[in-house]
Amino acid sequence: METFFSFLEKRVEDCSSLLCVGLDPHPSDLPAPTADAARTFCLRLVEATAPYAAAFKPNAAFFESYGPEGWAVLKEVIQAIRERSDRLGSMIPVILDAKRGDIASSAEGYARSAFEALGAHAITLSPYLGRDSIDPFLAYKEKGVFLLCKTSNSGAGDLQDLELAQVPGSPTAPLRLYEYVAQLARTWNTGDNLGLVVGATQPESLARVRTIAPELWFLAPGVGAQGGDLAAAMHAGLRSDGKGMLIPVARAISRAEDPAKAAAEFRDSMISIQYARTRGQP
Amino acid sequence: METFFSFLEKRVEDCSSLLCVGLDPHPSDLPAPTADAARTFCLRLVEATAPYAAAFKPNAAFFESYGPEGWAVLKEVIQAIRERSDRLGSMIPVILDAKRGDIASSAEGYARSAFEALGAHAITLSPYLGRDSIDPFLAYKEKGVFLLCKTSNSGAGDLQDLELAQVPGSPTAPLRLYEYVAQLARTWNTGDNLGLVVGATQPESLARVRTIAPELWFLAPGVGAQGGDLAAAMHAGLRSDGKGMLIPVARAISRAEDPAKAAAEFRDSMISIQYARTRGQP
Repeated sequence: METFFSFLEKRVEDCSSLLCVGLDPHPSDLPAPTADAARTFCLRLVEATAPYAAAFKPNAAFFESYGPEGWAVLKEVIQAIRERSDRLGSMIPVILDAKRGDIASSAEGYARSAFEALGAHAITLSPYLGRDSIDPFLAYKEKGVFLLCKTSNSGAGDLQDLELAQVPGSPTAPLRLYEYVAQLARTWNTGDNLGLVVGATQPESLARVRTIAPELWFLAPGVGAQGGDLAAAMHAGLRSDGKGMLIPVARAISRAEDPAKAAAEFRDSMISIQYARTRGQP
Repeated sequence: METFFSFLEKRVEDCSSLLCVGLDPHPSDLPAPTADAARTFCLRLVEATAPYAAAFKPNAAFFESYGPEGWAVLKEVIQAIRERSDRLGSMIPVILDAKRGDIASSAEGYARSAFEALGAHAITLSPYLGRDSIDPFLAYKEKGVFLLCKTSNSGAGDLQDLELAQVPGSPTAPLRLYEYVAQLARTWNTGDNLGLVVGATQPESLARVRTIAPELWFLAPGVGAQGGDLAAAMHAGLRSDGKGMLIPVARAISRAEDPAKAAAEFRDSMISIQYARTRGQP
């Protein structure tokens, strides 16, 4: 059976790219703060950048902020990615950046929303409510989950960097909360459909998580507008096979004069860094 | 200026109730799994239970799961609560149970969605991303936030019960993560618009959080279908003034033959427990 990550790896092979194009129709980037303008913004980005995109990542926040019409546009955009993929001859996965986290039948509702109503292939989730809040998503065997581990914002450390006293089954050095979440994710990933969100702004954290979870896929935001250094992040976070890391870029592409060219340049930079790394060069 | 909590306290006075009626249009409770059926389900509940409701709590998950039409119904239901309040002559607050948590402009997008596009008065949020993920919501001075602290599900302990090694400014006994979140919430609550979600299923945790945050409002789910004991929860979680705690009930009201009667009975049980408590009786 194809899992989300085997699907993703195929696309990564097809386009030689680790670039995840972020679809963030922020009102200040639109001619008017409307769902129609958000649609135009996203469809243009999808059309232009698809050849270089290992994945697309629409951020639910911006679509929701335009009300029910925004939610309808989100669905249209995901459908447009499917059609663009057909024309390319290579399916591009859609990761819904929704950062949901709820329990029992509510979690099931969010899973239906993302995977059935919207047709996304993967979703970002928060770990705060524990394993039973993640299981209803993992139950979709062919879909994927990226669990928030270490985020790229300045307040990430408020909880994620807290040092834990004692953790069952971890007799080694004291762990920080985000490191423990990475450990949990490994044990929860029994169906090869769980990855981690690890910000690209802190390469030392990326390296720590890579040590804890050598095989998991990371979604590593923070490159571009947030100032993360692409080479440092990739050296810290890539798997030993030179993959295992999707790098979302949104504004640095959408605000470029030529988004296709900007996406191609990000893709090419990533290839150079992968190549230098396999040759042991900095 | 009126804050969310002064608005809530006025409604609690008006209806002598701590009952928060949950609006969870779960597909298995509807004649058909459609947005139209969700609308009918919710409007009937609002109409019947409003006199006994200190607040209404629609759960975003169920509305989202019906697609864009579900999102439109959520907005309609919030508007219907406003109109029902007008007829009652007492405004009933709407707490959007969305458990969002994102950063920077995404957090601003979710805040616009909840408070402007939908017109909710308060929202539930996850603390995992830290203070800067909460601030864009707290910036709405007249709106409220309930921060997830200790949830009512079986997996809550996976992260929330972890014991912390050392926490800055906490030289006392070791804290669990949820206790530290309660401490953080007190320091973040500079505008009297931050409360906590503390499950009613674990009265000992409720009591711990009440000790840490004597003045904060709690949203305490888990009574009814989830099996939490109402009296034990209220004795553990009420403030010294006999308030400070909203108790959501969803299925035990929506599935009752007569939802108005069920809501009235919950309200009356709560009054009895409050009264016994002020008299020092168990």
